[in-house]
Amino acid sequence: MHPFTANTADSVSSLGELRLIAAIRRWLGKATPPSPFGIGDDCAVLPASRHPQLVTVDPVVYGEHFDDSIPARAVAAKLLKRNLSDIAAMGGHPRAAVIALALDPKVSTRWLEQFYRGLAATARSYGVPIAGGDITRQQGGLAATLTLIGEARGPRALTRRGAKIGDWIYVTGTLGGSILGHHHRFTPRLAEGSWLADRRDVRSLMDLSDGLAKDLHALTPERAVPSLIGAAIPISAAARTLAKRDQRSALTHALSDGEDFELLFTVAARTDRSAFETAWRKKFKTRLTCIGRFTRTLEAGALNPDDFTGYEHLR
Amino acid sequence: MHPFTANTADSVSSLGELRLIAAIRRWLGKATPPSPFGIGDDCAVLPASRHPQLVTVDPVVYGEHFDDSIPARAVAAKLLKRNLSDIAAMGGHPRAAVIALALDPKVSTRWLEQFYRGLAATARSYGVPIAGGDITRQQGGLAATLTLIGEARGPRALTRRGAKIGDWIYVTGTLGGSILGHHHRFTPRLAEGSWLADRRDVRSLMDLSDGLAKDLHALTPERAVPSLIGAAIPISAAARTLAKRDQRSALTHALSDGEDFELLFTVAARTDRSAFETAWRKKFKTRLTCIGRFTRTLEAGALNPDDFTGYEHLR
Repeated sequence: MHPFTANTADSVSSLGELRLIAAIRRWLGKATPPSPFGIGDDCAVLPASRHPQLVTVDPVVYGEHFDDSIPARAVAAKLLKRNLSDIAAMGGHPRAAVIALALDPKVSTRWLEQFYRGLAATARSYGVPIAGGDITRQQGGLAATLTLIGEARGPRALTRRGAKIGDWIYVTGTLGGSILGHHHRFTPRLAEGSWLADRRDVRSLMDLSDGLAKDLHALTPERAVPSLIGAAIPISAAARTLAKRDQRSALTHALSDGEDFELLFTVAARTDRSAFETAWRKKFKTRLTCIGRFTRTLEAGALNPDDFTGYEHLR
Repeated sequence: MHPFTANTADSVSSLGELRLIAAIRRWLGKATPPSPFGIGDDCAVLPASRHPQLVTVDPVVYGEHFDDSIPARAVAAKLLKRNLSDIAAMGGHPRAAVIALALDPKVSTRWLEQFYRGLAATARSYGVPIAGGDITRQQGGLAATLTLIGEARGPRALTRRGAKIGDWIYVTGTLGGSILGHHHRFTPRLAEGSWLADRRDVRSLMDLSDGLAKDLHALTPERAVPSLIGAAIPISAAARTLAKRDQRSALTHALSDGEDFELLFTVAARTDRSAFETAWRKKFKTRLTCIGRFTRTLEAGALNPDDFTGYEHLR
């Protein structure tokens, strides 16, 4: 759906600011609680909490993250879910979101309604109140920036730092080819992240957004390299489909494609991997794969992720 | 300073994402704490707190909130300060900020350096760590969206709701003509807001961003009108200067111009106003003016704010 309209009567400019805000409240419905816990005051208010607070921000920009081929509801769902994936990547759970919208006055009211209704549906299904936001004009532009506040379940937020040489490297789900649909249909791994944060032998955690080859650098301890078992990498069906269309292998897609939104984490070398994996399977249907370990030098036969590149945002 | 450059070597695109993030860390310096309390993980982490949390978000957009005539440092300072003003408007104090940047790859590195150095300077002077953020591409665009997390000092965040018929209406500072410079040079009224939240006879509070005439609606109780004393409205020198240039009166500017970033609040009718004002003057040099009260019907001789209009964002 094209977000802009040449017909002034169908555009945001015909509503004006106050009526637009009233419409947004209506579209969000129960997804936005009464002020000051929802839209309508200078700040949104969240009740006090005993846990560390988590904050993440991600935008969707017209022409970059979505185009006319993506339904407005799906744009909104993705915006919230990519932020939820960041909360999952710390082992936390979400508390509330605020959304800043920058738009050309020619944006169609119908597009915007679908966007907010999609946001409300996703917010309800993940239990995330939309607590506030901002609307501003941007000539020729359309971008929505969502900030998500979450909190750690226990005293610990699981970060990217903490892996040691010898740690096992794990990944959830299958990788690559997200562009064929997964980048909209993915499920943020909130329950899995929270379970991992509760286990002391899990030492570092992140979500995959720019491709395994690039993202793995963030977990790699100093003076270590990831020795990956090429045959173990869980390649998605979409990566295999893409490989048939272009000159790149399915493995290359699995290591290089962005927007997997799967979890990547490390487990202490001493861990009984079999018991760990059994405990996982009792709890989750989500696929879990050990793809290698951190070593001092590249192990014989191991795959070097530096031979692959990840997604570059500013090219 | 023009933010875009035709010379690729001077542009953000020549840095690439990883080097750009490294540069941003350098420019921010001590304004960004070590990860996970600063840039570098999936989420920023804030320590647990016993107080209600406040969240506000505001952007600056090229072509809307700033242009080539505004130094990049001033753009960043304004971005943080307008969010600080929202925290002040709840009687809170700031905890941390995250910033999402959307930019064309042709944005000049020099502009961006000045922007982040300006952000760092303002963040340091208000004690606000820059805890995280995001960078994304937006063809032809340049926008920065800052989300500020704060907290109430005590159990109470002072909201826009709570005024009753008979309440006195107060405003800090002087109003109007912000466009002549105040919109960059203003001081967020954090200490004043916090002091007001501690007083039980202060019943509602907000900051003025769209002009008194428009913003006052948000505080007005049901079945009440604000009866304003025209002669009492504190008119800024800038509003008088503007009035000499255009066909509108200085009073019109004081009621209609946006971006005053002053506090507007109400005090219970029973309050000893003289004692209240004396207590204020002992604590603050900031000008304080009682500009009227909420009544059932417009008092004889009172000024009707509906005869004036405020700033309309989507026109």
